[in-house]
Amino acid sequence: MMLKKVLLSGFAGLAVLAVGILIGHFGIEKGSSAPSWMSDLSRDVDEKLIQDGAASTHRELTRVPHMATTAGDEATVQYMLKNWQDTDTGLDASWREDYRVYLSFPNRDKPNNVSVGELCVEKAYQSEQDDPEVVQPYAAYGPAGEVKGRLVYANQGKASDYETLNATLSLTGTIAIVRYGGAGRADKAINAAPFGVIGVLVYTDPYDINDGLMSDENETYPHSWYLPPSGVERGSYKNHFGDPLTPYLAAKNGTYRIPVENITGIPPIPIQPIGFEDAQALICDVTLHLYNRGELRDSANVMGVIWGSVEPDRYVIYGNHRDSWVHGAIDPSSGTAVMLEIARVLGQKVKAGKWRPRRTIIFGSWGAEEFGLIGSAEYAEEYVSKLSQRTVAYINVDISVFANATLRASGSPTVQNVIFKVNIPGSDSVSVYDNWIRYSNRTSAAYGNIPNVGHMTGAGSDYASFVHYLGITSLDISYTYDRSTTRARIYPAYHTAYDTFDYASTYIDPGFTSHQTVARTAGNVLIRLADGLLLPFNCSDYAETLEQFVSTAAEAFEAQLVANGISLEPLKAAVKRFRTAATSLDRTIHNSDLLLLLSGRPLRARMINDQLMLLDRAFLDPLAFPNKYGYRHVIWASRSSNVATFPGVADAVEKARASGRKEDWAQAHKHLSIVTQAISGAAHTLAEAQR
Amino acid sequence: MMLKKVLLSGFAGLAVLAVGILIGHFGIEKGSSAPSWMSDLSRDVDEKLIQDGAASTHRELTRVPHMATTAGDEATVQYMLKNWQDTDTGLDASWREDYRVYLSFPNRDKPNNVSVGELCVEKAYQSEQDDPEVVQPYAAYGPAGEVKGRLVYANQGKASDYETLNATLSLTGTIAIVRYGGAGRADKAINAAPFGVIGVLVYTDPYDINDGLMSDENETYPHSWYLPPSGVERGSYKNHFGDPLTPYLAAKNGTYRIPVENITGIPPIPIQPIGFEDAQALICDVTLHLYNRGELRDSANVMGVIWGSVEPDRYVIYGNHRDSWVHGAIDPSSGTAVMLEIARVLGQKVKAGKWRPRRTIIFGSWGAEEFGLIGSAEYAEEYVSKLSQRTVAYINVDISVFANATLRASGSPTVQNVIFKVNIPGSDSVSVYDNWIRYSNRTSAAYGNIPNVGHMTGAGSDYASFVHYLGITSLDISYTYDRSTTRARIYPAYHTAYDTFDYASTYIDPGFTSHQTVARTAGNVLIRLADGLLLPFNCSDYAETLEQFVSTAAEAFEAQLVANGISLEPLKAAVKRFRTAATSLDRTIHNSDLLLLLSGRPLRARMINDQLMLLDRAFLDPLAFPNKYGYRHVIWASRSSNVATFPGVADAVEKARASGRKEDWAQAHKHLSIVTQAISGAAHTLAEAQR
Repeated sequence: MMLKKVLLSGFAGLAVLAVGILIGHFGIEKGSSAPSWMSDLSRDVDEKLIQDGAASTHRELTRVPHMATTAGDEATVQYMLKNWQDTDTGLDASWREDYRVYLSFPNRDKPNNVSVGELCVEKAYQSEQDDPEVVQPYAAYGPAGEVKGRLVYANQGKASDYETLNATLSLTGTIAIVRYGGAGRADKAINAAPFGVIGVLVYTDPYDINDGLMSDENETYPHSWYLPPSGVERGSYKNHFGDPLTPYLAAKNGTYRIPVENITGIPPIPIQPIGFEDAQALICDVTLHLYNRGELRDSANVMGVIWGSVEPDRYVIYGNHRDSWVHGAIDPSSGTAVMLEIARVLGQKVKAGKWRPRRTIIFGSWGAEEFGLIGSAEYAEEYVSKLSQRTVAYINVDISVFANATLRASGSPTVQNVIFKVNIPGSDSVSVYDNWIRYSNRTSAAYGNIPNVGHMTGAGSDYASFVHYLGITSLDISYTYDRSTTRARIYPAYHTAYDTFDYASTYIDPGFTSHQTVARTAGNVLIRLADGLLLPFNCSDYAETLEQFVSTAAEAFEAQLVANGISLEPLKAAVKRFRTAATSLDRTIHNSDLLLLLSGRPLRARMINDQLMLLDRAFLDPLAFPNKYGYRHVIWASRSSNVATFPGVADAVEKARASGRKEDWAQAHKHLSIVTQAISGAAHTLAEAQR
Repeated sequence: MMLKKVLLSGFAGLAVLAVGILIGHFGIEKGSSAPSWMSDLSRDVDEKLIQDGAASTHRELTRVPHMATTAGDEATVQYMLKNWQDTDTGLDASWREDYRVYLSFPNRDKPNNVSVGELCVEKAYQSEQDDPEVVQPYAAYGPAGEVKGRLVYANQGKASDYETLNATLSLTGTIAIVRYGGAGRADKAINAAPFGVIGVLVYTDPYDINDGLMSDENETYPHSWYLPPSGVERGSYKNHFGDPLTPYLAAKNGTYRIPVENITGIPPIPIQPIGFEDAQALICDVTLHLYNRGELRDSANVMGVIWGSVEPDRYVIYGNHRDSWVHGAIDPSSGTAVMLEIARVLGQKVKAGKWRPRRTIIFGSWGAEEFGLIGSAEYAEEYVSKLSQRTVAYINVDISVFANATLRASGSPTVQNVIFKVNIPGSDSVSVYDNWIRYSNRTSAAYGNIPNVGHMTGAGSDYASFVHYLGITSLDISYTYDRSTTRARIYPAYHTAYDTFDYASTYIDPGFTSHQTVARTAGNVLIRLADGLLLPFNCSDYAETLEQFVSTAAEAFEAQLVANGISLEPLKAAVKRFRTAATSLDRTIHNSDLLLLLSGRPLRARMINDQLMLLDRAFLDPLAFPNKYGYRHVIWASRSSNVATFPGVADAVEKARASGRKEDWAQAHKHLSIVTQAISGAAHTLAEAQR
């Protein structure tokens, strides 16, 4: 519709394929003679009609840079609203919600520079890279400052990297140059400061991102997907998610704001990202001149809703951010295009009166994600009660296609089952499932060899507030690499001026077929969650994960814990209790004579659904991690330790092992009790709620 | 049944009156031809049949001292289990749950003493006071120690009392003697220590408790309800609720325990309660020899349940503690007797197959309340998820009769309506409501003159964990004083060896008629909450309270807030939003064509009920009061300021006014934003959840 014809070659087929994700014969039919409440109660998802889905609108979204709160961003706000308010294909309602948030920008008049000259500007291979709205590379939330010092190579800027270096030379007064990866962006500076380092340069190493290739004459973009020498990865150098001035409060006008100097989790010393061309040229002593500055800006989320017919007070939320660093063709527009397509297909059915989901579907186009998941975090803070009480699941599709080899998914163990059931045809004749299991698999005690669904332990995209802060069952879906052919840390143009429509359509997903596959998969998952009479969650799969965590913990720590007078038995007993309760609930669900449910026990179905919906909520402990902003989920919180088990326990044991202090072992015991109580409490919620 | 005939004079009539609290024609009838789910969906409470209720079993409960975890306590555990497991009058199930908790006891071999001799023993006027199991008076959780110093009278032991004294004489090395009242028990010592005070004596002043009367020859018990000169009020000298070694964790075997020396909120210096006889005799220099010691003990809750027929996953919890300091005839057995009677009446109907509530009813007989609400707090911690997700309301009846003049109730504004509707006949020909309004009333914008339902801002009984920690709509019911005839701080035998069956039946409630009234009232409220198709909560009454709080805050603080750059407008807007949403939900409820609900929209009723059930939950903020253990409810948390408004705001403004520091005004702003967000969030949950 809004696509330029000249660019439509890859899309032409999609417009045709794009219809028909759904809609079953159980849908509410106008003029049916049965009483409407009967169909309300009995309607279930119809699998046969979940078939298709695809992406469009990508070109329009990526025409200009649309960094958060810029004019380009506002244009995407208007574009989303126009689509979602369309009378034929729009949603029931769509609106914007603004927050006043603290962002950080470079100074257009005084570009950041290093040493005597200015940094290389990212070389223009296409007119888009010349757009004056392309923001110069910088470290958002890094302080302004002018520092001069001897340059020292500090690997990835991990704490251990600086420690190692410091053993042989004094880092006081030096400027560290580190490569991306290994440590969080802000941490590269936070780790450095205690050693007297006064500034940090962060470069993208061709080994990490380009499989070693470096020449833009024949090797890198526009000759391939690899990053040109002048390309620079921008990014938010801030550890906590959400607006930094309003922790745990929605950033409205009049909201209390902490003083800027009290922000934690940001670089205490000047820091600047550079390309490998500049990195190569640097020698010995360097000077950084950085002019970044913080600003309060209005950032918008765009919301859209399809009201549920039977359970309007149950929400399935589907979201992605809208803001990019530059044109953001892949990050985030590959996801936004998928979201728009799914919304369009569903909206069309709703507007035509042909279908309405059992539960309410909410679409969220988040603002200012690139600055630290800000839009989604503010939304979670403002609506904390309502979302906690009513949300069935959150589906995140940010970068929908990193590469076009295979599906990738991460999420709560309970949704593994949902994703596996969406076994749609992929490209060639191989199904998405069969293709996926070839690239990434694991052995499950219950199922044997299955695709590997990852854990959501980090805060890499907008799911963070939903899973970690609100305890909402979440999942994240994308298409990704063939790891046997590249070791690229991420797609090479990530957060650079080269992440354009041309790049995406030429090198990432020619024909946009993987976009289609993700749209079908995510759309199908969305409908299963929104339309199933019973939620398709499998709580026994959570038990499998907990058992795995316990056995890992036992193997890694038990002897030492016992030597310190701490027993793992209460934890083991809690997991056993959880398994028993999950098995019993599973049996109830599978023994359920569906007809019985259909013929007048809607509250029985609701009871089971509430048990499933609220399962992840039972793992929240708002006091478990006082030093980790926003993390409350005791199973999925971030973890420093390499031992893949309960994060609070793993990190506390690691600390106690290192120090040997009795108080530190006591903290390990405390974290064991916290997680034991949470698992035990979750088991209580799964146990039968009646005679 | 277990009552001794010789003592039954006052009870004889009750056994007859005790039946028939309930049960309507909507009850599930065996052999009905309508499908069972139809009656399930349509059943509502039948008001006509809510009529009666009364107390019994009081004598059996009070035969021996039953301090927490003693043999006497275990006897009451067995007694509760026997009653609730009775095949004719018992509940669906009943069981005990043990926690291993840290209590504090005096030393039987080395009685605490003051000065050269031992303290007066409480004089025996009846054989019960001679029972060797009567625990000697002591300050639970007060440290053991031997201190000698000059005696100084310090009024009530408030911080301001010590400040005033310290202005004219040095308190270093002194022993303070203070009277009960004005400050919490532990605070009398906590406030003293910073001034160098080395010990504290706490006595009961005849002016405060006995309307000035002091002679046991003709004025005090056994001649009246007044406290004899040797009577001593025992008590827990601990500020936080729950087991002190396992904050926020259920005290199970293997649970992490903090070191005893890390317990906070307990006296840092020796402290001892004494009677006014001893207080009068003390002169000048005194020595305290105290031998209290802490012990880990197993304390039991006794639980009983009647499963709900339609919504088994919705809980109405009714509770009271079981442990006393000595015989505990009033505290807590007056409440336990009422609870047993209500359970017996309901159990009988259930066992006979004549009735089953729509929702599940849970009875809780809590252990170790006297040591700081321990049993109920551990229960709340262990089942935090399940209780948060499913509990409709908590009803607390601890001391059911302080005195027999009038009903007294406190609770969430939403339940005011429920209590008012229980307009049963009281003694004489005056209804409970008409009697109540004579003693305690207020003017409501919506209703005019109505009885005054108090706020639950403190932690005086087991409701604390439910309202403050879990955000569960709670209420507390009792019968109480005619304040025009006595200024007694509490019933005079409170926490002494004189709180016996004889005292209760002779002076507190002859004929036990007020026990009956409380049983009928609480039983009726319980059934309304458990059986109503729609929950009888009125959310507009919450709006009235919030508006009152805002106008109080505006009057008391607004000018000064504005002078410090802080606006009340966002708070006012949030309350307005709350009012609008509440009015709209009210309209929905009252416009509801009940037939429509009955004919197949059970999920619509459930949706409204969930909005009402979860309303108080929306006011929880687990990070709002980092220094107040267990307090998360931003409307009802404890408050030091005298301004009756939002507690966080009131206390922060008070502090800022005193210091004038910018940072303290910033904290006031922060608390304003916290409460604004909570109210706004609550409004979102009340707003329509569908088109």
